[in-house]
Amino acid sequence: MGHSCLYIGSIVPLAEKSLISRIRGRAARRPGVAAGIGDDCAILNIPDGHQVLVTTDFSLEGVHFRREWHPADAVGHRCLARGLSDIAAMGGDPIAAFLSLALPPKIPQSWVNQFVKGLLKLADAFHVSLAGGDTAQSPNGVLADIAVVGSVSKGKAIRRSGARRGDRIYVTGTLGGAAATLKMLFSGRKLRPTDFATHFYPSPRIGVGRFLMEKALASAMVDISDGFSTDLAHICQESGVGAEIHAPAIPCASIGKPAREVELQFALHGGDDYELLFTARPGKRVPSRIAGVVVSQIGHITRHKDIVLMNDEGAGSELRPQGWEHFK
Amino acid sequence: MGHSCLYIGSIVPLAEKSLISRIRGRAARRPGVAAGIGDDCAILNIPDGHQVLVTTDFSLEGVHFRREWHPADAVGHRCLARGLSDIAAMGGDPIAAFLSLALPPKIPQSWVNQFVKGLLKLADAFHVSLAGGDTAQSPNGVLADIAVVGSVSKGKAIRRSGARRGDRIYVTGTLGGAAATLKMLFSGRKLRPTDFATHFYPSPRIGVGRFLMEKALASAMVDISDGFSTDLAHICQESGVGAEIHAPAIPCASIGKPAREVELQFALHGGDDYELLFTARPGKRVPSRIAGVVVSQIGHITRHKDIVLMNDEGAGSELRPQGWEHFK
Repeated sequence: MGHSCLYIGSIVPLAEKSLISRIRGRAARRPGVAAGIGDDCAILNIPDGHQVLVTTDFSLEGVHFRREWHPADAVGHRCLARGLSDIAAMGGDPIAAFLSLALPPKIPQSWVNQFVKGLLKLADAFHVSLAGGDTAQSPNGVLADIAVVGSVSKGKAIRRSGARRGDRIYVTGTLGGAAATLKMLFSGRKLRPTDFATHFYPSPRIGVGRFLMEKALASAMVDISDGFSTDLAHICQESGVGAEIHAPAIPCASIGKPAREVELQFALHGGDDYELLFTARPGKRVPSRIAGVVVSQIGHITRHKDIVLMNDEGAGSELRPQGWEHFK
Repeated sequence: MGHSCLYIGSIVPLAEKSLISRIRGRAARRPGVAAGIGDDCAILNIPDGHQVLVTTDFSLEGVHFRREWHPADAVGHRCLARGLSDIAAMGGDPIAAFLSLALPPKIPQSWVNQFVKGLLKLADAFHVSLAGGDTAQSPNGVLADIAVVGSVSKGKAIRRSGARRGDRIYVTGTLGGAAATLKMLFSGRKLRPTDFATHFYPSPRIGVGRFLMEKALASAMVDISDGFSTDLAHICQESGVGAEIHAPAIPCASIGKPAREVELQFALHGGDDYELLFTARPGKRVPSRIAGVVVSQIGHITRHKDIVLMNDEGAGSELRPQGWEHFK
């Protein structure tokens, strides 16, 4: 947590200098955090009998967001949501977040304030402490990297590798809303962020993940960040299985005002949904709503190592992973 | 640990795609790592009665390194060394590192290979597992952020805030070598990296930190990453004390071939040394060499809240924190 740099004689921008002290003042101290900002490392307390979960995620200007499209508080929210969603996908409890933030010299102070505000609001909602990080001057655009540390009862983390033939496949919430919104932004539409909350202010499914872990309901789990087809392939690959998905069962998101349902292609391949995709043994009774979030059964795990999409007439076609890389 | 992005239709560069699988294959699995790369989070085992240490540090092209000055393996080495040094400064044991790496589209594959090689070589030397991270396409230059997670016996972490009046002040190794080397690079000199190892391949002082923690010798500690004057000010500020430093006792680095001693100004204010600065109660017997590293007593803590530099004639002047920000 130092911030030395090569710029001999350069002046660290005010935005960066004041950032640390403001975060330090505003970040609530949680029981899991023995020491936060203000030392070489943060010190965290992990409950007895627990393991530690760690995830890191970039949020880069021009790659993950654009300042002309995304309000600063939404950028801060999404930055942390990406990490929290990974903790949720293991059935874990988030404890602390660590923000590395590099700012270009001429960034308005108000942008930084709103970014931090959006991030801390989400942190507060999940009782997560912003316990450290790094700051630097960015040569080009806003660069953020979030590390989230959480915990889970020993041996209880829900892995990607536990799916077995015959397991049922479930998703939380609705899919495709974030990507459909992104397409509207690309087409030049001006959007009111609160009408497109699945894109601008996604909700990490911490409560769902924890419930599934506590009840030992899920055999495998992943969060849908790269797109459903890609993330399902992750489970199949790590578990050495295939899947059959019933297309009409896939819950497509409704976005905008008035709300309109997105096309199936967005739900199948669009990223940034931050819903959970999980499997459960056939005998398990999975509630249709967990922690206030709708849960849909959409298919089952097969022995063959391919993924088949069945349409409503019972005809099957291969569902290839088409995450962001080939998304058009 | 996802890597979705805004670039609809963009192709993720080969360098990035192969990076994950190569790291996954090459990163040794350590006892502390129950699950590394290949799930939403890494899962770490923390020894009973221990707390978790977390630190994150940027390594940004044009800010912390230049590709024309720094060989790729040195960039990878320094990237991890920054994080390990923070763990050392708490007296902790590093367990796992998490690398977020964004690469520009046209980066040579050989550069990425050498970067990973340099990072993993240092990781191996300290039995640290590269257990996860994130990858992205960079809009501009190489962007790396390293998170290092370690552990320390509960309540035994050496904080910045424990220095008391009368404590002796010590530093490990020699100071100023990294900054003096940087000045030579700025002046256009071509340097052989192995002749200037303090800059290109700094050694995090994990062994020294652990010894001081185990023997309960240090009352406060910080690593010298921002520059001695700035990092001493960190201890004084957090401890609410001042310091008196004996200038002739400061161990100035010798660099180059033949080796030449650097000027005192570099030792006082230059950053990136990654030595340890610590205090110990007057009654403690601090060895003059710990874990193979020379330890020098250079002053003592005072009640007054300023830092005074005494020259060899006994005259004092105020030593102001002049880390990178004002380094000329």
